[in-house]
Amino acid sequence: MLNIGQHISQEYNDELEDLRNQVLSMGGLVEQQFSDASNALLNGTINIAQRVTELDYQVNAMEVAIDEGCAQIIAKRQPTAIDLRNIFTVIKVVTDLERMGDESEKIAKFASELSADTNSMGFYKNLKHMTFIAKKMLTDALDCYARLDAKKALEVSNMDAEIDAEFEILNRLLSTYLLEDTKNIESILKVTWCARSIERVGDHAKNICEYIVYVVYGKDIRHVIDGKLQDDK
Amino acid sequence: MLNIGQHISQEYNDELEDLRNQVLSMGGLVEQQFSDASNALLNGTINIAQRVTELDYQVNAMEVAIDEGCAQIIAKRQPTAIDLRNIFTVIKVVTDLERMGDESEKIAKFASELSADTNSMGFYKNLKHMTFIAKKMLTDALDCYARLDAKKALEVSNMDAEIDAEFEILNRLLSTYLLEDTKNIESILKVTWCARSIERVGDHAKNICEYIVYVVYGKDIRHVIDGKLQDDK
Repeated sequence: MLNIGQHISQEYNDELEDLRNQVLSMGGLVEQQFSDASNALLNGTINIAQRVTELDYQVNAMEVAIDEGCAQIIAKRQPTAIDLRNIFTVIKVVTDLERMGDESEKIAKFASELSADTNSMGFYKNLKHMTFIAKKMLTDALDCYARLDAKKALEVSNMDAEIDAEFEILNRLLSTYLLEDTKNIESILKVTWCARSIERVGDHAKNICEYIVYVVYGKDIRHVIDGKLQDDK
Repeated sequence: MLNIGQHISQEYNDELEDLRNQVLSMGGLVEQQFSDASNALLNGTINIAQRVTELDYQVNAMEVAIDEGCAQIIAKRQPTAIDLRNIFTVIKVVTDLERMGDESEKIAKFASELSADTNSMGFYKNLKHMTFIAKKMLTDALDCYARLDAKKALEVSNMDAEIDAEFEILNRLLSTYLLEDTKNIESILKVTWCARSIERVGDHAKNICEYIVYVVYGKDIRHVIDGKLQDDK
């Protein structure tokens, strides 16, 4: 399945492989950020919330370095067809990863604020399932990218509808809380913002999956995705 | 200031210029989307909200077409240095434009829902100033892109802090409304979501400005921007 390793120049192969590995390392950091942020939120372990911001410096630096790496390979190797698609995908994927890092930072910030408020614990229990799916989507998207598995990527992409549905339900629930529990309006709103950030992590994971389909099939399924491809291979 | 038009091949110049024009056309559509969406919200003219969704099909198709155009130029012309930076910028800018379109669609959807609720008119008067700044940022960012004006792009980028501050104030205000006006919780939450989308339009305009600085100065100021550049030129 992997389209890496078919070049005459071993050095060129190594460069492309290195780029992919950098994306996966960056993905690993973002996974850690989101995992830390959601643990801080759900379990009140705010000492790890601080780490999310620290990791963000690394993530941002990696985004810039990887973009630079792409520019260098294009200038040096003049890639065409599949290689060019690979490089385009790298440019797009790192943008989504970096923004997932930003969402994780927002969650971590709210987690720190919410931790002082013991009354709010009850509200964000409801975020658990959403967080679970978003985390799985991110891990699976990175796994699909590592294996260039477009079929699995389509499945992962479809999980986004599940997060959106959870988000709808949660919003309705939080509206009810707002009505019943006017003392905790600030906290309930913060939980709502966290839910929004988790929902966006799902969106970004979906974007990554769509780029994987593009790199494998050479077909741009953004905006037209319907959960399956015509020429199944 | 423009770095276009210095190639031996007139055809190559035309191709690069064409790509930039496509980005500007796409930007014009997104401007229209955001303008329609915010008019629908602020003036209750929901008949134009529908147009936002219709425009989104065009915007999405343009994103895919422009990406494809970038791939073709890279494969055909093997660009280096400034041309390559130009093309990288195109790839990044269209991603942000497309996402502004998505935010406009969300605003338009809420505008339609909110229009039935005459009580909520009072709440979203507060959105007016935020919308004004976001609209200005988008227009100015596109203008900077058309002229490749990095100096102005830095100024526009700094306007984002103003939107963020407005967003903070608005959120506090809406929390007060939630406390005082429990009958309108659903509407107030919807207004909050609209504010969030407007704030994100500002974020995306800021991203575009940072790419302009990159293309002009060859310097990646994402994540390190402090409102000015060292080597002012």
